[in-house]
Amino acid sequence: MTDYPPISDQLSAAAEDPDSDVQDLESVREEGRRKMDWAAQHMPILTALRKEFEADRPFEGERIAMAMHVEAKTANLVELLADGGAEIAITGCNPLSTHDDVSAALDTHEHITSYAKRGVDSEEYYDAIHATLDLEPTITVDDGMDLVAAVHEDYPELIDGIVGGAEETTTGVHRLRAMDEDGALEYPVFAVNDTPMKRLFDNVHGTGESSLASIAMTTNLSWAGKNVVVAGYGYCGKGVAKKAAGQNANVIVTEVEPRRALEAHMEGYDVMPMAEAAEIGDVFLTTTGNRDVVVEEHFESMKDGVLLANAGHFDIEVDLEGLADLAVDTYEARDGVQAYELADGRRLNVIAEGRLVNLAAPIALGHPVEVMDQSFGIQAVCVREMVENGEAYGPGVHDVPDELDKEIAEIKLAAEDVEFDDLTDVQREYMGSWDHGT
Amino acid sequence: MTDYPPISDQLSAAAEDPDSDVQDLESVREEGRRKMDWAAQHMPILTALRKEFEADRPFEGERIAMAMHVEAKTANLVELLADGGAEIAITGCNPLSTHDDVSAALDTHEHITSYAKRGVDSEEYYDAIHATLDLEPTITVDDGMDLVAAVHEDYPELIDGIVGGAEETTTGVHRLRAMDEDGALEYPVFAVNDTPMKRLFDNVHGTGESSLASIAMTTNLSWAGKNVVVAGYGYCGKGVAKKAAGQNANVIVTEVEPRRALEAHMEGYDVMPMAEAAEIGDVFLTTTGNRDVVVEEHFESMKDGVLLANAGHFDIEVDLEGLADLAVDTYEARDGVQAYELADGRRLNVIAEGRLVNLAAPIALGHPVEVMDQSFGIQAVCVREMVENGEAYGPGVHDVPDELDKEIAEIKLAAEDVEFDDLTDVQREYMGSWDHGT
Amino acid sequence: MTDYPPISDQLSAAAEDPDSDVQDLESVREEGRRKMDWAAQHMPILTALRKEFEADRPFEGERIAMAMHVEAKTANLVELLADGGAEIAITGCNPLSTHDDVSAALDTHEHITSYAKRGVDSEEYYDAIHATLDLEPTITVDDGMDLVAAVHEDYPELIDGIVGGAEETTTGVHRLRAMDEDGALEYPVFAVNDTPMKRLFDNVHGTGESSLASIAMTTNLSWAGKNVVVAGYGYCGKGVAKKAAGQNANVIVTEVEPRRALEAHMEGYDVMPMAEAAEIGDVFLTTTGNRDVVVEEHFESMKDGVLLANAGHFDIEVDLEGLADLAVDTYEARDGVQAYELADGRRLNVIAEGRLVNLAAPIALGHPVEVMDQSFGIQAVCVREMVENGEAYGPGVHDVPDELDKEIAEIKLAAEDVEFDDLTDVQREYMGSWDHGT
Amino acid sequence: MTDYPPISDQLSAAAEDPDSDVQDLESVREEGRRKMDWAAQHMPILTALRKEFEADRPFEGERIAMAMHVEAKTANLVELLADGGAEIAITGCNPLSTHDDVSAALDTHEHITSYAKRGVDSEEYYDAIHATLDLEPTITVDDGMDLVAAVHEDYPELIDGIVGGAEETTTGVHRLRAMDEDGALEYPVFAVNDTPMKRLFDNVHGTGESSLASIAMTTNLSWAGKNVVVAGYGYCGKGVAKKAAGQNANVIVTEVEPRRALEAHMEGYDVMPMAEAAEIGDVFLTTTGNRDVVVEEHFESMKDGVLLANAGHFDIEVDLEGLADLAVDTYEARDGVQAYELADGRRLNVIAEGRLVNLAAPIALGHPVEVMDQSFGIQAVCVREMVENGEAYGPGVHDVPDELDKEIAEIKLAAEDVEFDDLTDVQREYMGSWDHGT
Repeated sequence: MTDYPPISDQLSAAAEDPDSDVQDLESVREEGRRKMDWAAQHMPILTALRKEFEADRPFEGERIAMAMHVEAKTANLVELLADGGAEIAITGCNPLSTHDDVSAALDTHEHITSYAKRGVDSEEYYDAIHATLDLEPTITVDDGMDLVAAVHEDYPELIDGIVGGAEETTTGVHRLRAMDEDGALEYPVFAVNDTPMKRLFDNVHGTGESSLASIAMTTNLSWAGKNVVVAGYGYCGKGVAKKAAGQNANVIVTEVEPRRALEAHMEGYDVMPMAEAAEIGDVFLTTTGNRDVVVEEHFESMKDGVLLANAGHFDIEVDLEGLADLAVDTYEARDGVQAYELADGRRLNVIAEGRLVNLAAPIALGHPVEVMDQSFGIQAVCVREMVENGEAYGPGVHDVPDELDKEIAEIKLAAEDVEFDDLTDVQREYMGSWDHGT
Repeated sequence: MTDYPPISDQLSAAAEDPDSDVQDLESVREEGRRKMDWAAQHMPILTALRKEFEADRPFEGERIAMAMHVEAKTANLVELLADGGAEIAITGCNPLSTHDDVSAALDTHEHITSYAKRGVDSEEYYDAIHATLDLEPTITVDDGMDLVAAVHEDYPELIDGIVGGAEETTTGVHRLRAMDEDGALEYPVFAVNDTPMKRLFDNVHGTGESSLASIAMTTNLSWAGKNVVVAGYGYCGKGVAKKAAGQNANVIVTEVEPRRALEAHMEGYDVMPMAEAAEIGDVFLTTTGNRDVVVEEHFESMKDGVLLANAGHFDIEVDLEGLADLAVDTYEARDGVQAYELADGRRLNVIAEGRLVNLAAPIALGHPVEVMDQSFGIQAVCVREMVENGEAYGPGVHDVPDELDKEIAEIKLAAEDVEFDDLTDVQREYMGSWDHGT
Repeated sequence: MTDYPPISDQLSAAAEDPDSDVQDLESVREEGRRKMDWAAQHMPILTALRKEFEADRPFEGERIAMAMHVEAKTANLVELLADGGAEIAITGCNPLSTHDDVSAALDTHEHITSYAKRGVDSEEYYDAIHATLDLEPTITVDDGMDLVAAVHEDYPELIDGIVGGAEETTTGVHRLRAMDEDGALEYPVFAVNDTPMKRLFDNVHGTGESSLASIAMTTNLSWAGKNVVVAGYGYCGKGVAKKAAGQNANVIVTEVEPRRALEAHMEGYDVMPMAEAAEIGDVFLTTTGNRDVVVEEHFESMKDGVLLANAGHFDIEVDLEGLADLAVDTYEARDGVQAYELADGRRLNVIAEGRLVNLAAPIALGHPVEVMDQSFGIQAVCVREMVENGEAYGPGVHDVPDELDKEIAEIKLAAEDVEFDDLTDVQREYMGSWDHGT
Repeated sequence: MTDYPPISDQLSAAAEDPDSDVQDLESVREEGRRKMDWAAQHMPILTALRKEFEADRPFEGERIAMAMHVEAKTANLVELLADGGAEIAITGCNPLSTHDDVSAALDTHEHITSYAKRGVDSEEYYDAIHATLDLEPTITVDDGMDLVAAVHEDYPELIDGIVGGAEETTTGVHRLRAMDEDGALEYPVFAVNDTPMKRLFDNVHGTGESSLASIAMTTNLSWAGKNVVVAGYGYCGKGVAKKAAGQNANVIVTEVEPRRALEAHMEGYDVMPMAEAAEIGDVFLTTTGNRDVVVEEHFESMKDGVLLANAGHFDIEVDLEGLADLAVDTYEARDGVQAYELADGRRLNVIAEGRLVNLAAPIALGHPVEVMDQSFGIQAVCVREMVENGEAYGPGVHDVPDELDKEIAEIKLAAEDVEFDDLTDVQREYMGSWDHGT
């Protein structure tokens, strides 16, 4: 048993400290609740599921440990699971992404304990992870695989009691698959990240729109007529490119995979090596998931005043160390914009220190609410599936069953009043046969 | 041995008939050659492969039977294979898609015999199929599975000598997979149709652009401001929707699969059931691959003057029989446009009898040359793969190996002077590892 | 009095000639009527006006001479005017644009005489112009100012009887304005071409869509991934650029006016001098209205296989003489495509001899029906305005009154079932005042 | 002489007050300077002009009074004019738009006195206006006509010494024209707002991009799949519609002018009356410049959770009083979002109290820097024109001469390294002539 305190205890203690500017707990919770309510208002999928789960109580008797970004959108997922009957312990999956007010609001729920606090150090971070495991979970829900790792490395005795898990993010799934290939993953985990729907909406629409809006609002610059260099043409890159072109940027794509390069070319974008793009780009936005995408040789040929930003998971895509080496001066040109001045006077402006721009920029809200509604809807039915049919899945990473994905799509369409057609019997039969000739 | 005559013999005989308007064989061949040359000029992938194949002669000693649309673009694939060393017998895969002049031009090649002739009846059609099998092929190349079917049903003795095959089209692959599931397919066949690249370029760009241009040029109507109802949001539907919106149509999508319906909705299109779309659509374009997509209940609520067209493989998507039953009069409103006049005076205009509009309309050229260059490039390297490594593939339908797909993408990019990046060693190593934490 | 015969007489004579392949007059007329009916079905503005004019007979007693492209769409305007009470004599405004069948169909109308015939020589062309003036018109309707010129130069005695005229096209208006500035224009003429609505729909949507569809269907090539160089960023250039980008071309704009160049740049297009664009373009489409836009220095740096086409009024934008001088061989690569082969083997392909591509290509239908419906709707109410209030306009070129333009917009919207808002009284009052402060 | 103190004096006094949280003046100025530097880095037009003006000193001896939004972008215009030789007095044109730090930074300039301070009351606001007139200006530069009004109403004795003025905004120009029509405007003023370039970039790109980004960042919502109702299809409405569609919204346009309604319809948008749009819209964005565009009858049929925002100049487009009457509860749902809860539980969310959303939302920066660079570039050359040729313009409102507009376009293109073509002599001659026939 750890003795890491829940957020409410931490904040109460802080509020009593005369030097602290923490408000009284009640106000903090109210602010958190207000944020959650706004999100709830635009999460029709979770709203529809809550009605169903409150009636069916599918999680009765389950204990769920969660490590996720604790902010307003996630909080609605957590409450949904709790209102479906689960006992829940949650902490953050990144020391900087927690909203304390939301964490505190969650912690007031009878069946939810939240340990998430913003700005904890590495030791506290892992203590909080471990604290959630005191719950002896039957289900783990991860955004980055921290819980699965902690269970396997530190609390293997919990494995027998765990029905299964769900993983939200690309990196988590990547690491889980590697673990699975090594034969080291001992319970089933759904790769929520990999559903086509999540990738499409989360990456294309979510990352695309929010990255560009964050950059625009952090810099007060516009897209029209800009040469926007998008590094990587995966789902995120496609989203960024499409939305930038949709705001009249001239999009340039760099790629290392010939088919994606060709796809971008056939879409009508300019495709070229980064070395060439570096000379003409006004904004550089990396989405590759790889390291050292923009490096010294590129900095050397860039124009004065360019913007450098990253929409990939890690802050390794723009080589900031290399840039610092080149620079004769660095200063904060604007909140969230670090200017690196080179010997010849050119200024290269790095947004949000090269971190995930739609989260780390001063004006950044992560994914739009509706996008997370979709992701979390899949999470919720994945948890339900694990509870109901977990034994049908062996240890390892599992794709989300098509039917769950479809269920969420149907709920969303119904919530948006979008009707669509059914196959007729004749059509259904036709689809199943193959002997109708040329 | 059949005794079905090659096209040259057929045309020579016809030319001698004083009542025939067939020109002398030489002129016909020249016209065919001119068409082939135009296509060749815009098929950089086949051009690059021809250089390679002429040097390497990968098909030396092979005999290839082919059943494909015999027109200028395909003809360049046929010559490419012949110039790579193969002996070839070819016929059409559809009685109406053959260009006799191109067929005749092909037939002049020392190593090619073409039996394809436009307008043959069903018996002649299958006689020609059989004639190609007289070659005792080692490879079959199909667009619709007719050769595979003929081999298995009528000439099973050929199976032992066949290394493998390749299939071009959706329907062919669909039928092959069903045959495969029944355990009836006795040699390996590449599902060329299913490569992501082919679907993207062929369906999205090819079908999208050519269907709309055919309709515009057949009707002299414009897209701007039109309500264009696209039935089905698969690859073809996406292409048609995207290109119609790109010409300022107001796109309405109908679907039966909730995720596709949601995808269309999130793209910004109106999504609704066909019963509702029927009331407001100006143009209806079916791309579902299913039957009875537009039927009597829809015709009854359509506006006067609407256009009905089909971009799916078969002419079953618009229920023409049902429409004829409703109509009090039908007449040719314009070449390729059949007007069905209803009792209340409304006129519903069917383009190209509901057949694949980018092939069957009076002004229709099938897929653009560049699109077929890509498809046929994959065909060519698939045939090479079968010759070189056919024994590695067991009987059944096989996906095209990623490497072949990539090879074609690289050739195309090189031909278009599009350069792209290579992974550095550091990046390659980074991609392969998973232990870099949050 | 001229004695130039109407089309019916010309065709009857021809049909009797055993060497002619002219069909009997009745069949020809039926074919013309079928074309007119198709157009009428998609001309809701003219349909609405016809209902009104048949009731009001605004042209009772008027005689209208017209020189226009005599094909199905124009024919509906002509009949509309006749059915509104006018007596009409019409001929072509270009020797190659007349459809004889439509001309013959028109000529059957009790109140219409058509002299238009395709392929007439220059003398016949002007004889026909003069023949229409035998009618002693009260109104002239021009597409290129030929009637106005003939009246002023050859039949000045008619001027007193003419209430006014209307001019359809850019060139005509350009010439009329020059004439007006010289003080030589002696009756009022409406510059129909210059209404914002006409330019927008005719040039942007009409020229844009039809030029691209003509090129696609003449060449069997696609737009996706192509570098499409659009010379000139006026209304036509904007339309071509927008529609090409909408089909996934990479659009490059050349301009001589800095504000237009900037506008294109801010739209997200690449802007560069033609000398630079020449090196990378795949398709070149001129829309400048100026001469020698693509010339020898550009040909010299173009890639093999490029397409050269013109969407401007005259065939002077691509310097074909210069190209012929450079070429070592020229041949018809495809119907409507002339290949110029240069000494180094590169082939530059000129579409439709550099003439207005959406009219002169082998697969070309001019503007879409709906676009002409709009233009001709304005023509019709302009003629009505001249009849009703002609005396209010002095000699010279006049802009079309806003109210007429609005009337046509309202008719079109009603025909398309598009409703829109009215200003409330409060809003109307607000708009009229200026003293509501910051 | 007024004795209204400059910002530096006001801030110094405030900093000495122990209860004030105003920082020391030096820090405030540094922050203001940092903001100005960021803007300057992305204002290539002003940068180019500064180089020219510092050399030429066109404003030597001039005194310029200015009333504008005093923030970083405007500040660069002010410095440009000062560095060109002028003596300047400036104040704000809106009590809420001033950035005190920028105002203080400006005030340090030897030739600039800034009176602008945020949050002044109405009396102070006009005192500051009057204070700038103590300078006895030779030029006035307005954003809303306050200086012109004060001169004419309160200081008519200054008129004789004033060469001319320039007006930045729609409303100002509207009021000036009314004044001009009444014969009350006694010196020449350039309508900077009305240049085609300003409207295009400022309204279409500037308002379009910044309004949508502000809303997205204020609400954390996305555009994909949303029904976005744009009221008004003028320049601002076109920009909002285009950029929203470019982010995959389904755009619905409402209009009162038939030609604009038709234009929107032909662009592919849904056009309908607000009463109908109210039922399906997710976001409503007004851009009409008129009042009572969204009113009670519309609120009554809206969906739960809709957003209401305004991109027009005044907060009169959404009838907030009417909405408040309907509501049973109102609360701040999120910073900058006021929720109005109706009796049936529906919540209508008003962004930024219905004020100009790209300025008044909590996350709002006004127009992008580049857009203002363009507007202010025109301002700068307009002031130069007044100084150099003011006597050529009589009293009244004057359009900006084409040549000035072109000059700015050329400077911008040069700054962006965009080259374009020159007319050749042959082309120039061709353009000037009209006697080249059909």
